[in-house]
Amino acid sequence: MSLPPPYTQLTEELRRLGYLGSVSALLGWDEQVNLPSGSAEFRAQQNAILSDLSFRETTRSELGEMIAAAEGITDELEPPQQAVVREARIDYDKVVKLTPDFIKRRAVAQSHAFHAWVKAREADDFGAFRDYLKEQMDLAVEYATLTGHSDKPYDFLIGEFDPGMTGDTVDTLFAALKSDLVPIVEEIINSPVQADTSMLKGFTQDKQERFLREVVAKLGFNFEEGRLDRSVHPFCGGSGQDTRMTTRFLEDLPLSSLFGSVHETGHGLYEQGLPKEHFGTALGESVGMAVHESQSRMWENQVGRGRAFWKFWEPRYREIFASELNHVSSDALYLAINAVGVSPIRVESDEVTYNLHIMLRFAMEKQLIEGTISVDDAPDAWNALSEELLGFVPQSNANGIMQDVHWSAGLFGYFPSYCLGNILAAQLWYTLLDQLPGLENDFEQGEFGRLLDWLRTNVHHLGKQFYTQDLAQRITGEPLNTDHLIRYLRERYLPLYT
Amino acid sequence: MSLPPPYTQLTEELRRLGYLGSVSALLGWDEQVNLPSGSAEFRAQQNAILSDLSFRETTRSELGEMIAAAEGITDELEPPQQAVVREARIDYDKVVKLTPDFIKRRAVAQSHAFHAWVKAREADDFGAFRDYLKEQMDLAVEYATLTGHSDKPYDFLIGEFDPGMTGDTVDTLFAALKSDLVPIVEEIINSPVQADTSMLKGFTQDKQERFLREVVAKLGFNFEEGRLDRSVHPFCGGSGQDTRMTTRFLEDLPLSSLFGSVHETGHGLYEQGLPKEHFGTALGESVGMAVHESQSRMWENQVGRGRAFWKFWEPRYREIFASELNHVSSDALYLAINAVGVSPIRVESDEVTYNLHIMLRFAMEKQLIEGTISVDDAPDAWNALSEELLGFVPQSNANGIMQDVHWSAGLFGYFPSYCLGNILAAQLWYTLLDQLPGLENDFEQGEFGRLLDWLRTNVHHLGKQFYTQDLAQRITGEPLNTDHLIRYLRERYLPLYT
Repeated sequence: MSLPPPYTQLTEELRRLGYLGSVSALLGWDEQVNLPSGSAEFRAQQNAILSDLSFRETTRSELGEMIAAAEGITDELEPPQQAVVREARIDYDKVVKLTPDFIKRRAVAQSHAFHAWVKAREADDFGAFRDYLKEQMDLAVEYATLTGHSDKPYDFLIGEFDPGMTGDTVDTLFAALKSDLVPIVEEIINSPVQADTSMLKGFTQDKQERFLREVVAKLGFNFEEGRLDRSVHPFCGGSGQDTRMTTRFLEDLPLSSLFGSVHETGHGLYEQGLPKEHFGTALGESVGMAVHESQSRMWENQVGRGRAFWKFWEPRYREIFASELNHVSSDALYLAINAVGVSPIRVESDEVTYNLHIMLRFAMEKQLIEGTISVDDAPDAWNALSEELLGFVPQSNANGIMQDVHWSAGLFGYFPSYCLGNILAAQLWYTLLDQLPGLENDFEQGEFGRLLDWLRTNVHHLGKQFYTQDLAQRITGEPLNTDHLIRYLRERYLPLYT
Repeated sequence: MSLPPPYTQLTEELRRLGYLGSVSALLGWDEQVNLPSGSAEFRAQQNAILSDLSFRETTRSELGEMIAAAEGITDELEPPQQAVVREARIDYDKVVKLTPDFIKRRAVAQSHAFHAWVKAREADDFGAFRDYLKEQMDLAVEYATLTGHSDKPYDFLIGEFDPGMTGDTVDTLFAALKSDLVPIVEEIINSPVQADTSMLKGFTQDKQERFLREVVAKLGFNFEEGRLDRSVHPFCGGSGQDTRMTTRFLEDLPLSSLFGSVHETGHGLYEQGLPKEHFGTALGESVGMAVHESQSRMWENQVGRGRAFWKFWEPRYREIFASELNHVSSDALYLAINAVGVSPIRVESDEVTYNLHIMLRFAMEKQLIEGTISVDDAPDAWNALSEELLGFVPQSNANGIMQDVHWSAGLFGYFPSYCLGNILAAQLWYTLLDQLPGLENDFEQGEFGRLLDWLRTNVHHLGKQFYTQDLAQRITGEPLNTDHLIRYLRERYLPLYT
């Protein structure tokens, strides 16, 4: 179909802005992967000018006029194109309410807060972090206020990562999940069967990487438009037609490295599945972090920790790590892959208890932003919630309220998406198992194409046309429902731990 | 000293533009080192938007006003600051005469010409390259004309790479060099002694890299503000406080890899020696390619191929490559390091005959740009000059006029700087040997700090305050003089080849 000029003019400009944003994304990847230790200040200056130019380009009145012109002809557009105009309007209205002063203040404060957090955590000194945390909270609220969301700042902040999501919806979902999840965790913890991962030692980095690259390629990651490198913290960066995943290899925690990478591959496959022709517009963009996490977690957990997956990969794993796995039985390996245990640290947690860590953080940040607990009361509040949800009080603030980087980076509203991703992943999983009979037989043959095609068609190719709840409704016939995650966790874990 | 506001306002803006330029430089490095094969078009779009923004930023009338304001107070400035204003004016006056149309046409044409060159060279089909070459020549002349240099376009083009240099000066220098150099080449070629590099085989890449990293660090490259990676063609990229060198390792040409990298280290040391506090201004910038090449070539040749250097490094080299060097005597190794022989290919040439290759290219491109030979006559003219200077007619145009990438990339006026760099390197070398008694004893001990300090003080720290000829005059008491290069080549090579 031929699109009206006001629409194509807008998308041309959005594409241009997309390329500009992608340059910043590349610098972000480079900073984690390549930047020499002494070049950080230089890079900060490079980022600053890109940020300045990006602010200037995205707030141009000409862009506002293009959006208005496209809005004037929305009845000539199909729903996907209407979504492009809708998102352009949302982004534009938000950014034009900001000021260069605010953006600069926030960037400087975040940089200081990050370094203060690193030091305070090392010294286990919450007092040294307290003022920086307060400043980040205040900036988050200021951001919400500037953009016209002073009435519900936390909803606005969630929406930054998962558009359309609200604190109340998350509250409802988490309450339902919690009541069903806690008994499962208790059953596993009290089981006479317990996983042992300590026998997996001395997996050299080179051999881990060899195995991983085979897995990642087989899952469908396109190395002709992407890379896999090493960094301290694994992530999926880059953008557009240049997706850059990273991983790390710990010789005595090979499964952590492997599943961390399969997780990033899920993100990478989503990025590579976004329609190239719509780059820069909402149709070429992910929905948000909850859907992103649903992809990474499905590949990591539903697929990667499943029997069918390992039926195919175990022989190859044993070929590469023959001596390392010599005394490890298949059952012991599979149990290690699905190890569950309450850990004080979120990032070291299994997929069962992880959700409880997220509930704790969600409750904390919601109250902090809404002002119902003060920053001074935060450590005690954290510890009380930890006891309630996880059954223990952290031994220190370093391993409690200060364990995560997010708040020091101003990321309030981000945490829920991890758990929402788990909920959506399980919900999608049962729908697609229905629609793709014999899918797990494919996995046993090392075939993952039918799954990827389904995700491409049902999720990736839609870009940001539908928000999380609508997308779930559209694909699975209902909005997010925690029953599917509970079903999945029961089916996966209870047979192992009895 | 406190600097007047019109000056500091200008330098602040220049620094900002410098950071913007450094982003493009980083993308250029990434393209050679990391870019996935299928991401080239995506990268082209990223480059295009950066180029657009850079053009817009560097042609802002506010910048012109800042320069004019600084010019109004030049009598309050010291000569170094005056140089900053002078260069800002030159750059500004040049770029404002260009048009977005010209810049875009040139970028597109260069991209096409490069791909045409790759294909035509593979097919040894000059006819397929002819129109692209002509277009590149025309664009170079158009560039000179647009910027007001239609009377002497080739001088202008040389000046783009080596400010202040002219075709006449190069003519005079090359004529002098040629008459002294040809007999040296003949003496070496006809010597009964000939170097053999063919016995150096099977030097694994990892071992080569281990040795190289030790060498590069010892020469003074600061890895805290720089990197060394692999790429198909070695180069020194990045900028400012983030210098990114690349190299390649050929298992059967270990010396080529090693000296290529020491060469890039010379570029890297220059970049790292530019004063950080003047980043973005002429005082934080290199003089041009001739001085840059003087640095890379001095470290590669005067230092790296010398007896003193190898007195220190040979034991370590033999330690790492024990079996590979088992049957190679020290004398044979040193002769291989200083192998001389006429090669049809410039990039495979030794430092003696390399200069003849440059004279050939200089004569060709000067006449092409001045219109005294036509593009259709170019292959014959090349072959005639090759016979005159090198003693042979190339077996093909692929190994003759089409062997270099430069012209396909629009780089006319670049070639002379390679030879000018050789001339300046030797000239600086004898001056610094006088001023630093016992310097080569340092090298025998693995100490290169006195040399680097001298180069820092006398060359690097000056930025672009003085152009090549003035810099040579200032340091050595005379402008470029080929006698020193001739002396050096005689002293280094004739004792070996008799």
